[in-house]
Parts: sequence; structure tokens; C-alpha cells
Amino acid sequence: MIRELRESDREGWQRLYRGYQEFYGYGDRAAAFYDKAFARLMARDARDFHGLVHDDGGRLLGLTHYVFHPNLWRDEGVCYLQDLYTAAEARGRGVARALIQGVYDAADRAGVPNVYWLTAEDNYPGRMLYDRVAQRTPFIRYMRKP
Amino acid sequence: MIRELRESDREGWQRLYRGYQEFYGYGDRAAAFYDKAFARLMARDARDFHGLVHDDGGRLLGLTHYVFHPNLWRDEGVCYLQDLYTAAEARGRGVARALIQGVYDAADRAGVPNVYWLTAEDNYPGRMLYDRVAQRTPFIRYMRKP
Amino acid sequence: MIRELRESDREGWQRLYRGYQEFYGYGDRAAAFYDKAFARLMARDARDFHGLVHDDGGRLLGLTHYVFHPNLWRDEGVCYLQDLYTAAEARGRGVARALIQGVYDAADRAGVPNVYWLTAEDNYPGRMLYDRVAQRTPFIRYMRKP
Amino acid sequence: MIRELRESDREGWQRLYRGYQEFYGYGDRAAAFYDKAFARLMARDARDFHGLVHDDGGRLLGLTHYVFHPNLWRDEGVCYLQDLYTAAEARGRGVARALIQGVYDAADRAGVPNVYWLTAEDNYPGRMLYDRVAQRTPFIRYMRKP
Repeated sequence: MIRELRESDREGWQRLYRGYQEFYGYGDRAAAFYDKAFARLMARDARDFHGLVHDDGGRLLGLTHYVFHPNLWRDEGVCYLQDLYTAAEARGRGVARALIQGVYDAADRAGVPNVYWLTAEDNYPGRMLYDRVAQRTPFIRYMRKP
Repeated sequence: MIRELRESDREGWQRLYRGYQEFYGYGDRAAAFYDKAFARLMARDARDFHGLVHDDGGRLLGLTHYVFHPNLWRDEGVCYLQDLYTAAEARGRGVARALIQGVYDAADRAGVPNVYWLTAEDNYPGRMLYDRVAQRTPFIRYMRKP
Repeated sequence: MIRELRESDREGWQRLYRGYQEFYGYGDRAAAFYDKAFARLMARDARDFHGLVHDDGGRLLGLTHYVFHPNLWRDEGVCYLQDLYTAAEARGRGVARALIQGVYDAADRAGVPNVYWLTAEDNYPGRMLYDRVAQRTPFIRYMRKP
Repeated sequence: MIRELRESDREGWQRLYRGYQEFYGYGDRAAAFYDKAFARLMARDARDFHGLVHDDGGRLLGLTHYVFHPNLWRDEGVCYLQDLYTAAEARGRGVARALIQGVYDAADRAGVPNVYWLTAEDNYPGRMLYDRVAQRTPFIRYMRKP
């Protein structure tokens, strides 16, 4: 079941988010990183991030975080899905697909049909799913040199 | 000279922004599209878009629009450079490079070092510049099917 | 066990090669296509294609076809691995990896260390393997319009 | 004028081919590299490389080298255009385009309609031309680790 993240999810959420950060090579995030992120998600600020989880009878199998932000071409803005993670032991069971659908549903309720995300070109398992539930665009990301 | 967009730029700004929209195949935008975009830029809402122009003695040679939006990994958020355009007759004179630097400077003043943008993989003239002033990341963009 | 393709493999080889052709959308190849390809592989012409199969106690689980061709930068030429296929029921057991290694070994025996192949950017299962046993280059393929 | 490379082109050919090698970071090739390549091109072996040059009244402005090699899917094989170079001072005058057309013509005479080449994803000037005279395929190149 996909539902909004809530205060009582703190422990299970952090376990998942840590797994996600480890996937990207940030396994050593300080506790403050998780504290701040969770506090922002719980603040329910319409202009900041929202969280959804996949709850399997009380056990969290996956999470996603998304935000609505302005776009000059669209009055209603766009929805950016930043984080998506499925617990290693729950892969292949449709968790990520359901979470993406959960974001689509939330975006529809907010009147923001345009949902997008970025993924590494070589995130093969992710892209197998994304090619089915979304479409690749020809856009690539540039960033200012740190 | 790079400077903030202002009310008196309306005509020159629209000429440029129309050129940019034509580049992306949206040459037939209604007047309301430009009216709304300009009004948003003039509202100077810290959470909405900002505009910079390249002013060559009163003649506008290029424009850029950027916005600061939240990022769950960074307290200060990130800066998204959405639009960048140089008038056809002013290409090759460093206009786009100066505009990007203008966004970098604005981002620095806002305490948001992370600036990014998206570009089509086959935007060769753009990428020749971007490879010099920024770095390509391995990230590609997926979007919900319309 | 990886070994050279031989005359008695005709039936099993065609079953595999048909599967491979179907993967690429050419499921309706005429019998002549297979006849010619097999005859060329059996001719053992040093300048034409060679075949290797993965033989699991008499049952063929996979095949690969490769050819040596000139390269103006290298006296010894290069080795092009054109076809690689694992039977659907034998996936995930290292068949493709062993076949690639078989080509590497054949190339070493021929004094041609440079082995390459081309794959679709979105061949995710293939690329998961290729990233481990080879390296991606920045080269992309252009072809004359048909 | 596009014509076949000939013995008397030795000096002008080497000047161009050195420029091309420098472009790829191989500016220090030994004389033997050029000796061997030129000898192979002059041998006119149907299975080895052929050379074309762009001759502007006795001055060579560009070169290309191509080879026909077997392909298991096509009886007639394919034509691989390996090298293409325009002298720095002759850019923007259609030299590369004419050379590619020269290879297309030679391939037609040989009954080999399929012509292909590989190029770096970030070879923007090249790709501006290639997108017009050919088509990009989704294929990327993998190579054995050296």
C-alpha cells in the first residue's frame, strides 16, 4: 500500500533512505542529514518535499520524495521526483512502480500533470522500469563545476 | 553588460524569448504566454523565476531565466537555469557565456552554489559552450507520458 | 564448455540464432538466411566469421559470431564480435560471459588483442554484463540512410 | 574534387593524416606508422583500406579511409569509414561532406550500400554534418579492456 510518510515511520524511513544514500556512495551521512530531511518532510510545506512510502503490513519496503517547483513555461509548475528506493529484499515486486504511480496520483491531485526525474545513464535496473512507466527525453544534465 | 531584467525591457525581451520558443518549435505561443511569463519575472518573488539580459548599449542580445528550488539533499536548495538564448545576429560573441556567469554570480549571492540545466543531447552549439563553463553529468531526464 | 561451432550443431545453432534474430525483430528470416550464415561459419575462412557455442552436455545454451577485419591504425587488425545470444532458459548462468571470454581467447591466439562490439544504448541486461567484462567507449554509430 | 589517393600524394596525405592523429591525441606517431598506412592504401587490396582525397587544384584539403569487411547478416558485407579529416584552413567548405559522398559512391560501385562509422559522442562539429548526411543509430561501442 502506498501512503504518505508519517512521524511513526522515522526508523523504517531512515533505514531505507540510508540504503539509497549508500547506493549513491554517501553511506556516511551524519545523523543531522536524516534529521533535517525528515523534519522537512514532516513539515508538510506545499513548496517543500513530500514523502510516500510503500507499507507492507507495517513494514516499509520503499520510499519516494518529490517536490513541486515553478516552471516558466507552465503556470501550474512541475513535479520533480528526486528520490526513489526499494529495500534490497523487496526488489522485483513492483514497489518502485507503485511509488511512481503514487507520485503521479499526488501530482494529479495537485493539478500538476508534468512529473519528471533524472537518472544515471547506466542505472539499468531503474531504466528497465522507467521505460515502461515514463518516457526518456533527449535531455541531459549539466552542472556548474564544484 | 549583464543586468537584471526590468519593466522597460518588455519589447526586446519578448523578441528574444520568441526566438527561443521558435528554436524549440513553439513559434505560435499566444500573447498571454509572454504576458504571464514577463509578469512573473517582474514580480521578483524569491521563489519564482528571475531574468537576466545581456544589454549592449540599450539593445538586448540575450536572456536567461533561472529559479531557486528546494533539494532534499541540500538545505540551501539548487538553482535551475531553464532558459538561455542569444539573438541570432549576436552569436559567437560570448553572450551566452556571460549570461551563464551572471546566473553563477546571482547564485553565489543567494548562497546556492549548485547551478544546473538540461539540454538536448544534440544541441551541439550549446554543448560546445557548456563543456567549457560547466560539466556534463551522467544524468538523463525521464518524464511522465503526456 | 565453450567450443567452436561444428557441422553437427546445425539444428541447435539455428534455434539459438533464430532467437537472436527475433530479439532484433527479424523473426521471419527465410531458411536461406540461416543456410548461408551456417555455410560461411563452416567454411573456416580466416577472413570471414567464426562461431563459438556454449555446449552444456550436448545442449547448446548460447552462441557468438566474430570476425577479424583490418584497421588502418593496427597492423594486426581488430576483432568484431557481431552476434551474442543466450537461450532464454539459460540466462543468468554466465553463458554470455563465457562466450565473450571465448572470443577474447580466440583473439589472443590470433594475435589480435583489440576486441569490440556494438550494442543498443538501452540493452540494459547486456550492458550490465559488458560493463564488467569490457569498457564502454564514447563512440556512437552513424550509418548511411537506407 | 574527390579522387582516389595516389602515390604522388604522399606528402600532402601525411600532413593531413598527422593532423587527424593529433586531433585524437596521437601527435607523436613514428614515421613507420605513416609509411605502413600509406603502403597499405597504395596496395589496392580489395580487402584492405582505400583512400580518397579532396584535391583543390593540386592542394589536398581532406582525406578519408574506408574498408569493406564481412557482416554475417549481409552477403555483400559492409563499408566502414574509419578516418575522415579536413585541413584546419579548409573547414566549413563542404570538404568532409564531399568525402563522405565519395565513400558512398565507392560503396555503391562495390555493391555495398551499408556504410557506417563511429564518432565520439561529443564530436559536435562532426555530428552537425553527420546528422545531415547520415543517421545516428542507438548503438554504442564497447571494447575489451586493454
